[in-house]
Amino acid sequence: VRNLKTSLIALAAMACMMSAQAEPLQVGDIGGFHIGGRRVTLSGLPVREVQIPGVPFPMRIDPNGDYVVEQMYVHYVKLAAPRARYPLLMLHGGGMTGVTWETTPDGRPGWQMYFLRRGYDVYVADAVERGRSGFAPPQVWTQEPIFPGAKGTWELGRVGPPGSYDSDGAKRTAFGDFPPEAFDQLMKQRVPSWGAANARAAMQAFDQLVQRICPCAVIAHSSNGPLAMRMALNAPDKVKALVVIEPSGALDPQAENAAKLRGVPHLWLWGDNLANDPVQSKVMPGSVRWRDALVQAGVTADWVELPRVGIAGNSHVMMMDSNSDQVAGVVQAWLERNGAMK
Amino acid sequence: VRNLKTSLIALAAMACMMSAQAEPLQVGDIGGFHIGGRRVTLSGLPVREVQIPGVPFPMRIDPNGDYVVEQMYVHYVKLAAPRARYPLLMLHGGGMTGVTWETTPDGRPGWQMYFLRRGYDVYVADAVERGRSGFAPPQVWTQEPIFPGAKGTWELGRVGPPGSYDSDGAKRTAFGDFPPEAFDQLMKQRVPSWGAANARAAMQAFDQLVQRICPCAVIAHSSNGPLAMRMALNAPDKVKALVVIEPSGALDPQAENAAKLRGVPHLWLWGDNLANDPVQSKVMPGSVRWRDALVQAGVTADWVELPRVGIAGNSHVMMMDSNSDQVAGVVQAWLERNGAMK
Repeated sequence: VRNLKTSLIALAAMACMMSAQAEPLQVGDIGGFHIGGRRVTLSGLPVREVQIPGVPFPMRIDPNGDYVVEQMYVHYVKLAAPRARYPLLMLHGGGMTGVTWETTPDGRPGWQMYFLRRGYDVYVADAVERGRSGFAPPQVWTQEPIFPGAKGTWELGRVGPPGSYDSDGAKRTAFGDFPPEAFDQLMKQRVPSWGAANARAAMQAFDQLVQRICPCAVIAHSSNGPLAMRMALNAPDKVKALVVIEPSGALDPQAENAAKLRGVPHLWLWGDNLANDPVQSKVMPGSVRWRDALVQAGVTADWVELPRVGIAGNSHVMMMDSNSDQVAGVVQAWLERNGAMK
Repeated sequence: VRNLKTSLIALAAMACMMSAQAEPLQVGDIGGFHIGGRRVTLSGLPVREVQIPGVPFPMRIDPNGDYVVEQMYVHYVKLAAPRARYPLLMLHGGGMTGVTWETTPDGRPGWQMYFLRRGYDVYVADAVERGRSGFAPPQVWTQEPIFPGAKGTWELGRVGPPGSYDSDGAKRTAFGDFPPEAFDQLMKQRVPSWGAANARAAMQAFDQLVQRICPCAVIAHSSNGPLAMRMALNAPDKVKALVVIEPSGALDPQAENAAKLRGVPHLWLWGDNLANDPVQSKVMPGSVRWRDALVQAGVTADWVELPRVGIAGNSHVMMMDSNSDQVAGVVQAWLERNGAMK
């Protein structure tokens, strides 16, 4: 009888999961907006003649005059009847855009859909510098952009170990959780960025966004992890929970007042194969220090290394790995434990 | 009695419209993908040290090696039960991204939501060169990018007449259909582009997209109008209808076989105040020639100047004008007449 009961419960759970996949999502609105930005005026530049695709004659372009720069694009899907207490804001990592959270490179629903199906409104940003946020003229951003190459993407993404990238796909050694056949698709998602010169502009747009759309929970990946930590510190009344996925750094407990974050539970999430990671090997001690400072200040600051809870093999882009739903489930369970659902 | 009847019909129509706005949209899937692109390999470039926002130490970047370039981002919303026979593919104009079709600059639902509510699956692309499609290193795209300024946006968008832009918003003369207080928001949507050097790459990605997602109807704005015309010519079995919104050119009837398009109805849509438009004054004769060639070849080729059907004042970005729903209604009525609905 006991086995039957277990089987029935398992069957019911399966049926429930399958219907969650198949049922239409009840959507109230889909849209986007740009936030932040400032006007700049250029002068003294020569007029150019340029050929625009689709325009059958050269256009005379006078580059002098007013521009708007450093704005940030935000996409949203609002449910007709969210079951969560507040929306999720998802922030991608370096050299990436909000596409990070959409369909995975191997074609499965990503975290945007996962959390929509669990009842959250979902906001996804393209941080300043990239994607639909555009970028500023070289007179404003004077650094050269950095283009993300395949070798760096393979190694920093921990698709495979350092030194294992090869131009010939058949000769690459992959760890395996990120599907290696989808690596080209991951490469197509990568975009240039300008470096730290614009960190202040990015931060300003993030802070404005929090004031506009929160209370919310924030999920931030990699290089936007430290910026999300500061978003929480700048608006602890608005950021109700913070999940950082392998952040590339943390705040300095000597410089910041961790106690301000008492109402903001934090979750650090780590994948596998981190031992030789060229970023984490340098920044992990700082992350530990900030986590410890939060704990000492009475802030909920949880630290989950996935291999220690029985989930092995995850890459740096765990929201795209073969088990991306399983990892999302860890985040969702933590959010629920911290009061995210109505 | 007649008045009462009219009032009742008006009331019923209003109630129906209101419920169409309020009812949840039944969505099957929301996602995206990148299509097209090619691998390039760079060599002989110096290694750089760069500071990445969120990374607390300089990163050593070796720019040599493999990159993927000239891919195109496509976003989609699929309904649980589309009432249309095929999806819509929406292509923005020059210096713009797919954001063109999302929430209008003054904050109302744009054409993406309009057509979703009418029962179409909607695909929105960021053409090669821009937005979430990224851009290639200067070794691959050797031209300098063109940054869209405020004056050019004001004039080419026909927000106001030529010469009427002023840095001081209070001193600008607007035609009025595009809400002038939303002009800054429109500026935030604008992105750089590289000019005609990449027209072939853009066309390749468009052609691949048609093969992947069509049969479909295509709605193309401005500079992507001529490219959409070629998409139809390259796949007349796949493109079931084509709507071009103030295209910046057309195909050459001497060079192309218009008869191939017999199964592909075309609609040209024009706004108001076109007399002094710096692009259309040059390219309109070519558009008329291609339309005439289509008509002579037995292709449905309709030409709607909105002021002639009682809709006055529209700008070049009519999908964002105050009456954007009314203009969308003209497109929807035409699509229906041409068999778009089940």
